[in-house]
Amino acid sequence: MADRKIRLGIAGLGRAFTLMLPTFTADPRIELVAASDLRDDARKQFENEFGARSYGAIEDLCRDPDVDAVYVATPHQMHAQHVAIAARHGKHVLVEKPMAIALDQCQAMIDAAKKAGVILVIGHSHSFNAPILHTRALIDSGAYGAVRMIHALNYTDYMVRPRRPEEMDTAQGGGVLFSQGAHQIDIVRLLGGGQVRSVRALTGNWDRSRPTEGAYSALLTFDDGAFASCTYSGYAHFDSDEFMGWIGEMGLRKDPSRYGAGRAALQAATNADEEAALKAERNYGGKNYAPSSHAVSPERLHQHFGTIIVSCERADLRPMAGGVMIYDDKEARLDPVPVPKVPRAEVIDEFYDAIVHGKSPLHDGAWSMATLEVCLAILQSAKTRAEVPTKHPIAVRT
Amino acid sequence: MADRKIRLGIAGLGRAFTLMLPTFTADPRIELVAASDLRDDARKQFENEFGARSYGAIEDLCRDPDVDAVYVATPHQMHAQHVAIAARHGKHVLVEKPMAIALDQCQAMIDAAKKAGVILVIGHSHSFNAPILHTRALIDSGAYGAVRMIHALNYTDYMVRPRRPEEMDTAQGGGVLFSQGAHQIDIVRLLGGGQVRSVRALTGNWDRSRPTEGAYSALLTFDDGAFASCTYSGYAHFDSDEFMGWIGEMGLRKDPSRYGAGRAALQAATNADEEAALKAERNYGGKNYAPSSHAVSPERLHQHFGTIIVSCERADLRPMAGGVMIYDDKEARLDPVPVPKVPRAEVIDEFYDAIVHGKSPLHDGAWSMATLEVCLAILQSAKTRAEVPTKHPIAVRT
Ligand SMILES: NC(=O)c1ccc[n+]([C@@H]2O[C@H](COP(=O)([O-])OP(=O)(O)OC[C@H]3O[C@@H](n4cnc5c(N)ncnc54)[C@H](O)[C@@H]3O)[C@@H](O)[C@H]2O)c1
Ligand SMILES: NC(=O)c1ccc[n+]([C@@H]2O[C@H](COP(=O)([O-])OP(=O)(O)OC[C@H]3O[C@@H](n4cnc5c(N)ncnc54)[C@H](O)[C@@H]3O)[C@@H](O)[C@H]2O)c1
Repeated sequence: MADRKIRLGIAGLGRAFTLMLPTFTADPRIELVAASDLRDDARKQFENEFGARSYGAIEDLCRDPDVDAVYVATPHQMHAQHVAIAARHGKHVLVEKPMAIALDQCQAMIDAAKKAGVILVIGHSHSFNAPILHTRALIDSGAYGAVRMIHALNYTDYMVRPRRPEEMDTAQGGGVLFSQGAHQIDIVRLLGGGQVRSVRALTGNWDRSRPTEGAYSALLTFDDGAFASCTYSGYAHFDSDEFMGWIGEMGLRKDPSRYGAGRAALQAATNADEEAALKAERNYGGKNYAPSSHAVSPERLHQHFGTIIVSCERADLRPMAGGVMIYDDKEARLDPVPVPKVPRAEVIDEFYDAIVHGKSPLHDGAWSMATLEVCLAILQSAKTRAEVPTKHPIAVRT
Repeated sequence: MADRKIRLGIAGLGRAFTLMLPTFTADPRIELVAASDLRDDARKQFENEFGARSYGAIEDLCRDPDVDAVYVATPHQMHAQHVAIAARHGKHVLVEKPMAIALDQCQAMIDAAKKAGVILVIGHSHSFNAPILHTRALIDSGAYGAVRMIHALNYTDYMVRPRRPEEMDTAQGGGVLFSQGAHQIDIVRLLGGGQVRSVRALTGNWDRSRPTEGAYSALLTFDDGAFASCTYSGYAHFDSDEFMGWIGEMGLRKDPSRYGAGRAALQAATNADEEAALKAERNYGGKNYAPSSHAVSPERLHQHFGTIIVSCERADLRPMAGGVMIYDDKEARLDPVPVPKVPRAEVIDEFYDAIVHGKSPLHDGAWSMATLEVCLAILQSAKTRAEVPTKHPIAVRT
């Protein structure tokens, strides 16, 4: 049983897949058996690299009897439909964040998985990162008192990375709330206990050439009175990795002198089609594809999603790329957290334990639906300029 | 006219006075002529040090015909009454932040100054700092587009410094909203244009032995749709001066290895009276008094009040202790701002220009009343858990 492998089929050989690939190939619990994508080049590379099958249609992938589970890494707006197909064929599902773009989609996904008796895990998201989970464990130890306030901030270049057109259209899941809120809000919920009761937020949309939300500030109130302030900007100006010791999101040292490189590279595309092509060319199977470097660097630290400061009654806890900083009444010290040999192994831990050992996953459908609800509430609050109560708060499973 | 001096009388020879003393003695535009305090020791030291008069009652100070202007640095809850006395005697007034602890007090102060035809300036606050004013000038230049989002955060040891009992009682102006919000909100308003339209906030009060607000997170909406997220914690755990290159509030290099020293020192006091005595003993005239060191250090940089990031349409601006970081579309660079020879000279600039040159001060009564209104709105929003509209928004004078 211990060396049972999950035979995984991939739906969507894009950027997300590229980031998970080092995990899938290095983790002994995973075997890549098949893939589906619309792009011929990507399918061809997959077949060659893994001696595996590939399909144009996700239905065909899901019909493959050698596939135990499907990793759904297609664009957000397709997640609901693709999860439904996988579940209908009795496959367990690991679906990328955000779970979907609407709450009824999430509910349908949960129902479909339940009806089919398959496991549904939503990930990768950065709330899987070991320092986040270790911070949660420190909170659960009771040594520092209850969580009272959380501060989260992240300033990135999200808005100047090459995008598909729908990634710039909020109605189709575009903008930072769906893509980046799915990380930050998931982390904040996990550390705050999960049950967000209401949301007040404002959003920023100030680049006319990329007309979707590129920034937000949100104030979340938890059930027990704790609160969180979450700020994100993807406009590629100030880079908050400075506050993380210049370790970037992937856990690698970052060179601050490359400031502006992302925006400059984007100039190569003069319209939306060219920009989408630019993204595709860098993807798996594309002519500018380069494997993600994060897996092989010997200096790799933990991945992260910006500054997180959890104020408990008797200490502040701050997950970092090398562990968790504990600022208590007497001293400030780093509680180191060992870096897993395989990056993002935490995702496989949860998915595997659920499938093979029957352990309920933390990032299940109900959990992730609650994260999406908060992200949608941020959008709504910004529009109505009012407090937005949540209807589906879910507590963290500890 | 250019070398006219303002003959200043001091009301309150406490901590605030100690911090302004290097300014008053070094700035050629100021002459210290008299003081008033309830503490004999403080009065005695003042008489000896400056060969000047002193009074027990502020009325007597204000009756002194040699006094042109009074610096009111008594506890917050006395500001209104003491400003009224000074104005009634025809003295210009520089009153410490917060202006007062209630809006009707502010209005009475404004009315009293107007009726008497005297200048009323509220300061020092850290919104006088030259890098903040330079950030405002960069915004006004139009080079970076409109301000869209501001992020402010500051984690200090405010709550473990020795305090008078009323500083731990919200009803008497205790807690971080009155004392520290007066800095942070003033800065954020100045950079956001001033006109805060509504406030949603939550406050933290999680040390039972110091039962007042020690933390807050607030989301401010400006008239033009820009917004600001402001977070403060005074619980002496994480120290956000790390984000300012370990330059402390007073512009001096900070030694992070002194972590916990403030909380440890406070252990010397076992009750509120002992703690108040501890504060008084360190004050001017007290047995543990030591002059503030910030004026004399040759490495002194600008004072600051934590991290401030102003996101404009085409750049992020970040006031630092050495100038303003400009993160635009192409590069990140420090725009240096020369450190004034006299610390806090900016306060005297404004006060002097108003009195001598008839220039309207930025930090006048209406301006500072609007800052207090936002601080009070933060307290109210935290209580009602609802959005609180403001009634007295004031635009920044540019
Ligand atoms: N967790 C992470 O770090 C991370 C990183 C990037 C993206 N993501 C998530 O992954 C998802 C995909 O985003 P991306 O950036 O990888 O996009 P992408 O455009 O790089 O990749 C999407 C891939 O799906 C393929 N595809 C589209 N429709 C398909 C269909 N019907 N059947 C099969 N394949 C299809 C495309 O050809 C493309 O190869 C999004 O939900 C995104 O939020 C997660
Ligand atoms: N801008 C700054 O950096 C800064 C720093 C500290 C304090 N402050 C402000 O200064 C004010 C005073 O705070 P503090 O920390 O200096 O307090 P403090 O207790 O150190 O000093 C107050 C002084 O006022 C005296 N006093 C009290 N009642 C008086 C009266 N009726 N007449 C004359 N003197 C009287 C006290 O004896 C004491 O010397 C507060 O409003 C505070 O917010 C500003």
